Amino acid sequence: MNILSESITKHVNALSQIGNLGPLLENGFTRPSWSKEETAAMNYIRDVAIQNGFKASTDAVGNLFLSYGCEDEKEIVQIGSHLDTVVNGGLFDGGAGIIAGLEALIAVSKSSRELKRGLELVIWRGEESGTFGVVFKGSKAAFGLLPATALESKFGNLTLREAIILEGYNPEVIEKGQRTIPQEKVDRIAAHFELHIEQATKLERDGDDIGVVTSIRGPVNYRISVRGVASHSGATPMGVEYRQDANLAMAYMHIELDKICKDALEQDNDLVQTVGVINSDKTYNESHLEVYNTGFTTICSYSYFYFNVRSSNKEFLGSYTEKALNLIQKVASEFKVKVEVEKISSSDPLKEMDPYLQDITEQAAKDLAYKVQRMASGAGHDVQIVAQQKKSNGKAIPALLVFIPCRDGLSHNPKEFTTDEAIAKGANVLAKAILNLV
Amino acid sequence: MNILSESITKHVNALSQIGNLGPLLENGFTRPSWSKEETAAMNYIRDVAIQNGFKASTDAVGNLFLSYGCEDEKEIVQIGSHLDTVVNGGLFDGGAGIIAGLEALIAVSKSSRELKRGLELVIWRGEESGTFGVVFKGSKAAFGLLPATALESKFGNLTLREAIILEGYNPEVIEKGQRTIPQEKVDRIAAHFELHIEQATKLERDGDDIGVVTSIRGPVNYRISVRGVASHSGATPMGVEYRQDANLAMAYMHIELDKICKDALEQDNDLVQTVGVINSDKTYNESHLEVYNTGFTTICSYSYFYFNVRSSNKEFLGSYTEKALNLIQKVASEFKVKVEVEKISSSDPLKEMDPYLQDITEQAAKDLAYKVQRMASGAGHDVQIVAQQKKSNGKAIPALLVFIPCRDGLSHNPKEFTTDEAIAKGANVLAKAILNLV
Repeated sequence: MNILSESITKHVNALSQIGNLGPLLENGFTRPSWSKEETAAMNYIRDVAIQNGFKASTDAVGNLFLSYGCEDEKEIVQIGSHLDTVVNGGLFDGGAGIIAGLEALIAVSKSSRELKRGLELVIWRGEESGTFGVVFKGSKAAFGLLPATALESKFGNLTLREAIILEGYNPEVIEKGQRTIPQEKVDRIAAHFELHIEQATKLERDGDDIGVVTSIRGPVNYRISVRGVASHSGATPMGVEYRQDANLAMAYMHIELDKICKDALEQDNDLVQTVGVINSDKTYNESHLEVYNTGFTTICSYSYFYFNVRSSNKEFLGSYTEKALNLIQKVASEFKVKVEVEKISSSDPLKEMDPYLQDITEQAAKDLAYKVQRMASGAGHDVQIVAQQKKSNGKAIPALLVFIPCRDGLSHNPKEFTTDEAIAKGANVLAKAILNLV
Repeated sequence: MNILSESITKHVNALSQIGNLGPLLENGFTRPSWSKEETAAMNYIRDVAIQNGFKASTDAVGNLFLSYGCEDEKEIVQIGSHLDTVVNGGLFDGGAGIIAGLEALIAVSKSSRELKRGLELVIWRGEESGTFGVVFKGSKAAFGLLPATALESKFGNLTLREAIILEGYNPEVIEKGQRTIPQEKVDRIAAHFELHIEQATKLERDGDDIGVVTSIRGPVNYRISVRGVASHSGATPMGVEYRQDANLAMAYMHIELDKICKDALEQDNDLVQTVGVINSDKTYNESHLEVYNTGFTTICSYSYFYFNVRSSNKEFLGSYTEKALNLIQKVASEFKVKVEVEKISSSDPLKEMDPYLQDITEQAAKDLAYKVQRMASGAGHDVQIVAQQKKSNGKAIPALLVFIPCRDGLSHNPKEFTTDEAIAKGANVLAKAILNLV
């Protein structure tokens, strides 16, 4: 059994026709959650699987299950990922995992040995928060975990509810918090894998082919609004006695946050934090009245920023974010501005992925003479939702995230890229590891 | 001679009907440069002046001159200001000066004494940079100082050239750099006053009625673009080795700028600086592709801010901004981001207003038993353009800026407010000072 990069190339080429916005690596891909483009990409994979003897089914919200030998209440080994993208995203975030999973499961299905467990490729809907602002939408809905409020989230003029209905599925299960994967099926999932591009440069820098992921960082996202007092930039003297400057207060907040982050890293905590979005500009905000009253000769009366914090340690994440928010309040009172803190979203970190799956996957890579390392994941993936689901015996579904390198660590970016050879190596590792389980 | 607040109230009420956006002090006024609203406000003042025996004329670009007794090559004492507003601005920035000037000149025209000099109220077009992004447009054009490139500046879908033509005037003089006020008339201007709301809280805090302005700060405005590298906020480790974070670099730039500002103030330099606008938000920037690729789980690859610096000392302003820009570059290289510096606009400071006009105006206030102080102006006004014009004998036109208080120092804000009584006091001071000159 040897999955060649040529068989990967065929799928990469096919998916590169769906939702792309021009020449590859230029404008990228936009395949929003529950869009025609996402469905078209899923249909391509479905058809290839069916041609290889798999059976297709969808759940009430449109997650796609491509099964081989899962009859007779057999236990199942799954590989999952997604095919939606952020706006102007890339082909490989999600796509690489689906392509590798498809080829790995086809290869295992064709092995000469009789399989004691079934195989299943799961294509989750709508993983990216880039459309509709909510992450892990399909996988969370499958386990009854997607809040009904998510249905009102919008992308462009469309609510998530409308998008789901337009693609022919039923948002009612989300409304009611009903799961689409019953507990009986959860009890049958013997293992769940997800392969993903690393979205960072560690594998690339170390010259490794495979990352066996030990833990997944959980994110907390806040939107922080800062309210000062507008006044004339020339006539108002300097100093907090005269100026309640939202932008200046915000800069000091960011510096203080940067300092406590450095301190926490020096104490060996797992932590990343990012202020990805800042705004206090009327020019391009004619729809946003609060920002509208700013100007380059006006002391800023209103600005906002997003604060994203991640750690693989849930307890640390809680105490750190509390400290960070207190610090923001402290700077605000020093600058006589007001802050409003809105928690946008959060996901629990996954402290440890399944140790046995880590072992057999690392061994599979070594057997194939690929260079492998164990590493933490900074980004979240659908697999962490699966890994948190409990079987009737109280144990979690054994789950593992596997990384392959991507060029320059870029993702959520039109220049996101990994080679067909790298995907093939990932597929071979998955197939070889799964042969231990079936 | 005693100008009562009742006569001011009539004009305030009339102007409050033109370009306002609903109840007073709520949404404010929008009277863009060379708009129907600006013209309507000018026409109201013109008609009142004509009813009081003044003669009206406009120059090629639409500046309005309301003259009394200026025949026979007589010298002229002028009062000038403007009637345009920023978007969602107030009634009194410009308006208070025109109303006070109108009433002051009518009062002087009706004095029993024969006047040896003429009187002229000048309503400059388009003072505010809030529309078309260029400041002092009318007064600069009058002296051939408005760059032809300003004609291409846009407000909404309209260029300044189109706006001028729509109001019935001729942009060609601006195109050719021709002055509309000939040197012979400059030679005749014996004095030029502008009354303005303070746009800060010094008079209000000190309980004073009148500010005699000694100098005017000159502004320099930069747009600074910061370019980092987009990458995943969770997967990318902290530290400049991995992250080229435009937003974090920007925060450190602002802190460093704040530090050198404090240092300069401690060394008794006249200085204010403001970062009024910051942006790295795709949400409300769908038209702005560079910002579009940011996101709250993405390390920021592109952000920008505006940097406004003002001082009444031209030499200091030059050396300080050079130091500030070098510091921005230094922080950029520490954070491995790139910056682009675009100089948006600048005006020379006015180091000293006419000492004789300061003296007679301060004395006029004292004679009227008003509380008066001398002070610097942080904001720029049309009067500074006039004050920089040289007569044939090489001397500048004697010019003075006079402040009255405004509530909470607010301007460029719908809540901009001053009382009719405060405007009346200003008008009385102007009239009494001018009686020394005519």
